[in-house]
Amino acid sequence: MSGAGGTSGPVLALVGATGAVGTVMIDIINGRESVPWGEIRLVASPRSAGKKIVVRGEELTVRALAPEVFDGVDVAMFDVPDAVSAQWAPIAAERGAVAVDNSAAFRMDPEVPLVVPEVNADEVAERPKGIIANPNCTTLSMMAALGALHREFELRELVVASYQAASGGGQEAIDRLHAETAAVAGKGVGVRAGDVREVLEAAGLPVSESPFPAPLALNVVPWAGSLKDDGWTSEELKVRNESRKILGIPDLKVSATCVRVPVVTTHSLAVHATFAREVTVARAHEIFAAQPTIVLVDDPEQKRFPTPADVVGEDPTYVGRVRQALDFPNTLDFFVCGDNLRKGAALNTYEIAEELATRL
Amino acid sequence: MSGAGGTSGPVLALVGATGAVGTVMIDIINGRESVPWGEIRLVASPRSAGKKIVVRGEELTVRALAPEVFDGVDVAMFDVPDAVSAQWAPIAAERGAVAVDNSAAFRMDPEVPLVVPEVNADEVAERPKGIIANPNCTTLSMMAALGALHREFELRELVVASYQAASGGGQEAIDRLHAETAAVAGKGVGVRAGDVREVLEAAGLPVSESPFPAPLALNVVPWAGSLKDDGWTSEELKVRNESRKILGIPDLKVSATCVRVPVVTTHSLAVHATFAREVTVARAHEIFAAQPTIVLVDDPEQKRFPTPADVVGEDPTYVGRVRQALDFPNTLDFFVCGDNLRKGAALNTYEIAEELATRL
Repeated sequence: MSGAGGTSGPVLALVGATGAVGTVMIDIINGRESVPWGEIRLVASPRSAGKKIVVRGEELTVRALAPEVFDGVDVAMFDVPDAVSAQWAPIAAERGAVAVDNSAAFRMDPEVPLVVPEVNADEVAERPKGIIANPNCTTLSMMAALGALHREFELRELVVASYQAASGGGQEAIDRLHAETAAVAGKGVGVRAGDVREVLEAAGLPVSESPFPAPLALNVVPWAGSLKDDGWTSEELKVRNESRKILGIPDLKVSATCVRVPVVTTHSLAVHATFAREVTVARAHEIFAAQPTIVLVDDPEQKRFPTPADVVGEDPTYVGRVRQALDFPNTLDFFVCGDNLRKGAALNTYEIAEELATRL
Repeated sequence: MSGAGGTSGPVLALVGATGAVGTVMIDIINGRESVPWGEIRLVASPRSAGKKIVVRGEELTVRALAPEVFDGVDVAMFDVPDAVSAQWAPIAAERGAVAVDNSAAFRMDPEVPLVVPEVNADEVAERPKGIIANPNCTTLSMMAALGALHREFELRELVVASYQAASGGGQEAIDRLHAETAAVAGKGVGVRAGDVREVLEAAGLPVSESPFPAPLALNVVPWAGSLKDDGWTSEELKVRNESRKILGIPDLKVSATCVRVPVVTTHSLAVHATFAREVTVARAHEIFAAQPTIVLVDDPEQKRFPTPADVVGEDPTYVGRVRQALDFPNTLDFFVCGDNLRKGAALNTYEIAEELATRL
């Protein structure tokens, strides 16, 4: 790119430029060795319009979301709430942009591809609505690993338990975890029922005012998203339905339990994956090692495995604890960590935009 | 009981009376409405001998572990490291006591029953070595729930991911989590790789000196126990092998992933359990509600489910998030929380001792 406001190359718009994911997106764009864009436009709510943000050495002014900001735009990335995407992604598409949407608004729309570039990049070409969806962060954290294994072994069944970071709930959720951690520190709590709640209450942090339905510091909360049919949460059903769509396995069997843990950023998942063909740990290691977007950290003798505190801020998916199931044929158990704001959100969206740029 | 040093009723010895589990054991004994014991003897290492502890209103002096402390003892509970149990439980048995051992030393010995009273109480009668073993805390946290379901539906397969509390590693591990929590509080960490490690290092808490192989505050650690064959940990194999033995299902299929989380006390598990017969959430609720040692907290509309911070210090196992698997026949997914120091250790050991007392 000659510059953020240059003239050669396609035009990229970032809608939601001042939000939690948008901020990570700008970090990613600034960290790229080169970018294919002739111009980058930052867009946000009218409240944030006029703000100045430096992108690749050039100070850009945030523009207020309006139909005309999409004129001349080739790719418009949306990092905004579902309702904003639902309204504005079609407007961007109408004005000629390809909308790459990180919300849940279009993910299960049969006319909208759901793309993880290392799994199904070619699907960006089929976009009858001019919209491409970016998967949910929990699903995304394991997709690079599962996609690679699926190509060789053919995935059939998936049992997943998540260890999800607070930042999946946005900046308010991050602030809440930091505030709760400060409130419980040095109090010796966690030794009888309810004492964590009492300490939070005393610190002016009642659970009733939290984005989480229970204390998160020194606790885990088996709930993410909203209630859907039969006791399943929206997050658990996203893991099921989005995995099926991305991998192109409409009858993939999936059970997921989504649990929030007191981690700031980076989702982890314990994955139990059953395949059509025989699997070995040695071959799985080769497959993971051959995938540029995966880092294999799996040396149990040295107690080396991925943990979220070591993976946050990193682009690749980290995989470890790979074991052949002792009692289930063709089955691997493994542990995976992915930064939910990067690969789980901004990075994958940006990788889709880059994939589009090569095809414009 | 007429008093801790009274004369009527059987004699109980508690070996490891001053340790983390022993301390909880004394709380449990003190909290009982009545106890069947004519005398209670507290035993510990010579270092703790002479210490005074009040048990049911009477000040008892801790005695040093020696063969003669078991003379006249009917039931000797051991809450000590594996090597101490391996040496001393047979000595207690030789002197005529039934040893109830909370270590891993004898759990898989075919001549030693492994007992969870609400699942297999009758097995306390078959004890050719005079030793009865108490299961591992992680296994125990789900046994009341699985035993109840197994009686009706016949368990076949189990996929489990754990959210294990620090206190499974003893007092040193609890202290470590509190120290780490205090060190990271207010630092805004968890936003780039390694910053939690750096903050701990700067606070004089390098990971090299931790009982855990990675930071635990604002992190999760997919490791518990020691390395066994093919990348499995001792803890994961205990969940498999002990579940098979307690439930009496030698060919039960099990995959477990054991993960330490920044929680002080109370283990949680995400359980995916497949049965021989058809299951429904409604019937599972009835089964759980009918079991006195289970508390069912499962009202997703009100976002009510068990969390470790609300269960710590409680005797029952808490069960919630009960869902019928959408894609797996005869399968339930649910979330369970149990205090790993109480039902997971001291309480179950004491319940075995009480069961023995009714049969002496």
